[in-house]
Amino acid sequence: MLEPDQLSLNIPETTKPRVIIVGGGFGGINLAKKLSGKDFQVVMFDKQNYHGFWPLLYQVATAGLEPDSIAEPLRKMFGSDDYEDFYFRLVKVTNINPEAKTVSTLIGDLPYDYLVIATGTKPNYFGNDQIRKYSFPLKQIPEALNLRSQMLQCFEQANMSKDPEVRKSLMNFVIVGGGPTGVELAGALAEMRRHVLPTDYPGLDFSQMNIVLVEGLDRVLPPMSPEASEKTFNYLKELGVEMRLNTLVDTYDGEVAVLKNGEQLKTNTLIWAAGVAGALIDGLPETSVERGRILVNDYNQVLGYDNIFAIGDIAFMKTPEYPKGHPGVAQPAIQQGKLLAKNIKRLFRQEPLEPFKYKDKGSLAIIGRNRAVADLPGNMHFGGFIAWAIWLFVHVMALVGFRNKLVVLSNWVYKFFTYENGTRLIIRPFVRKGDRAKRKFINKYGEE
Amino acid sequence: MLEPDQLSLNIPETTKPRVIIVGGGFGGINLAKKLSGKDFQVVMFDKQNYHGFWPLLYQVATAGLEPDSIAEPLRKMFGSDDYEDFYFRLVKVTNINPEAKTVSTLIGDLPYDYLVIATGTKPNYFGNDQIRKYSFPLKQIPEALNLRSQMLQCFEQANMSKDPEVRKSLMNFVIVGGGPTGVELAGALAEMRRHVLPTDYPGLDFSQMNIVLVEGLDRVLPPMSPEASEKTFNYLKELGVEMRLNTLVDTYDGEVAVLKNGEQLKTNTLIWAAGVAGALIDGLPETSVERGRILVNDYNQVLGYDNIFAIGDIAFMKTPEYPKGHPGVAQPAIQQGKLLAKNIKRLFRQEPLEPFKYKDKGSLAIIGRNRAVADLPGNMHFGGFIAWAIWLFVHVMALVGFRNKLVVLSNWVYKFFTYENGTRLIIRPFVRKGDRAKRKFINKYGEE
Repeated sequence: MLEPDQLSLNIPETTKPRVIIVGGGFGGINLAKKLSGKDFQVVMFDKQNYHGFWPLLYQVATAGLEPDSIAEPLRKMFGSDDYEDFYFRLVKVTNINPEAKTVSTLIGDLPYDYLVIATGTKPNYFGNDQIRKYSFPLKQIPEALNLRSQMLQCFEQANMSKDPEVRKSLMNFVIVGGGPTGVELAGALAEMRRHVLPTDYPGLDFSQMNIVLVEGLDRVLPPMSPEASEKTFNYLKELGVEMRLNTLVDTYDGEVAVLKNGEQLKTNTLIWAAGVAGALIDGLPETSVERGRILVNDYNQVLGYDNIFAIGDIAFMKTPEYPKGHPGVAQPAIQQGKLLAKNIKRLFRQEPLEPFKYKDKGSLAIIGRNRAVADLPGNMHFGGFIAWAIWLFVHVMALVGFRNKLVVLSNWVYKFFTYENGTRLIIRPFVRKGDRAKRKFINKYGEE
Repeated sequence: MLEPDQLSLNIPETTKPRVIIVGGGFGGINLAKKLSGKDFQVVMFDKQNYHGFWPLLYQVATAGLEPDSIAEPLRKMFGSDDYEDFYFRLVKVTNINPEAKTVSTLIGDLPYDYLVIATGTKPNYFGNDQIRKYSFPLKQIPEALNLRSQMLQCFEQANMSKDPEVRKSLMNFVIVGGGPTGVELAGALAEMRRHVLPTDYPGLDFSQMNIVLVEGLDRVLPPMSPEASEKTFNYLKELGVEMRLNTLVDTYDGEVAVLKNGEQLKTNTLIWAAGVAGALIDGLPETSVERGRILVNDYNQVLGYDNIFAIGDIAFMKTPEYPKGHPGVAQPAIQQGKLLAKNIKRLFRQEPLEPFKYKDKGSLAIIGRNRAVADLPGNMHFGGFIAWAIWLFVHVMALVGFRNKLVVLSNWVYKFFTYENGTRLIIRPFVRKGDRAKRKFINKYGEE
């Protein structure tokens, strides 16, 4: 590949105002879509070349979906003639330079008229480097694929291990974080244990497989209602998931997790779904950042700036209803992105801006294949079949809007409801960094 | 992961005869399927946990298919009750011990009554280590995904390069080997150049993109008829593929390929589809091996042994019709696998064996999306629509038999005929080993 000095961003000069969007997630793409047309030049930077439908990422990890079902290349999304003046660059933004009104990337600088930071979040290990080294995060597609490979390899090895204690450790899975990611992952793993794995591994006794969900607060799904939490707790128990509430993980060395209450859990696979931190970019003053997120006003303007904005998970908009900022889910990002497009146009035309008011359309979580909980506006709480039908409808509509392909949709629905699919593939054997010497032992295949 | 001494193959003792099959490719799976039932214990070893439909691998590389469309986990394939006494182990076989009648694996030894080597082939670089280091092979799914990432990254970089010469090099693709793999890959790349890439990269001039196919013999598709070769040559020319016949590649250093006639081709991507060698396992005497393949008689018995067999690409069965052995395609492997199942049963019952007689059902190759050539028994040669329809029918039937899922099938057909799919994803950025220092520049994402 080329050296930086051989590359340039290659964005044409323009007389139109230029909007730079950093991040092609829910916020970034909804903003870019509404900025289509002839009035602005839009430049999007991302470290990946695709947009991911993250609510279903856990299904890639549990071999229920393939990555292409939840990822769309950004060039394809913005490839049509509607987006004449849209430019995508696969490059990392390293610095914001508010004085110069430029951003710096690994390739070069680019001036902006409007800058929108929509970079989302990254895992937060709360300073625990050991956990960062040995745990499995679940925020990106390669991480989901690595987790999938890890699980399948654990079962292959369990099938061949001489020592029952070692076998148990391979078949124990600890999920840290009882929010939606952790809960949905636990449910999916439990379904695999019940419906899929015994057929694949007839030599293993899956009553020996343990799934433990560890949560620091006093209930699972803390962002949802107490009713939803209680139903979810019961569903998880029915599925055989063990829960440890009011508990944090102190240490994990790749073999034993020690909880703060002293309990030890032997496991080869600890999945970290317990905390996120904003994916900040250098260059904003400290006063614009709080609790790892970028402080914004009701117009998503970064405090202290007219023409720098932040939307989605990275933004911290304090409102009476949400004094700690909006939840880190898709809807605030989507809504802020859409409104910001309007507000940027108004700003350009020197018209008054519209403040953001989050429309909470509700929350959903699915536990396993056919249990779900729903909180809907108006303080309505559902479980059971109704919640499940709502979850299905919402996600199906989102995906159809997302990929717009009924064939892909039917494939996904089919795969989701049967486990008669072929995704239990170990394409690239996963080996933790510390285990590189052992890599040769397992398989001469590899990442390269 | 575990150390070898913590693992054992864990295959139950049995009074039945044990058949060990090394390799879950076309030969191995067809043999195992016909050995289902109660008479034998069948143990299959493979370094991967899935069987791959390799004729369509090039489509994974050119972002037309996702891996799960062409791969089926072996545990799923043999998971039903028809295969009660079938065992799969994800482990590499390191040695054959004919005297002891055992095989050695990285985990331990296992005795056999009948041993079948069905390991297929690996790329043959003819001793050229530099080419091995810098070229892109295309025999396995991770290799296809790496090639896909490489191509997409080349275009991203070309879109940002300052130097027109560098840009051209990034947009040049050299395919070495004019057999079916090389031809089909060249055709698919040419279709991408025509239909997909200009929309994705409107800033690039794709008339600058060159696809060069290098072949050492005097025609493309040497295994097929001269009529097929000629039609294929014309189709490739129509698609804008340049061909260099009667030419070999001398050196390639990652930037410039030098042909034996002295011509230099600047390219960042040289794909090696030019030679295969048998994937031999240590332990057989030299007299049982010729030209890198295992010599077998008409019953697929390895010369000198009654109970060791080889089938498929690794086997070298000299017959009057095929003095150089059968072609390295799927049909001989499939047919030998099926017959060997019958012969093993006869051997066990001490009945006479049936000699293998290859039924050449014909050869097909597809060039791009809608051009194909077909050689059928009876010296019939087709091009154009008829050949294409035959190709489609054969591959559709093979896949339906393979995955048995109409939904997956329709998805595949849909993806194949439109390019309206989302597989142009760079999931794991590809970085050649020598470029590791540059990895950080491109992307902070990676294999782990």
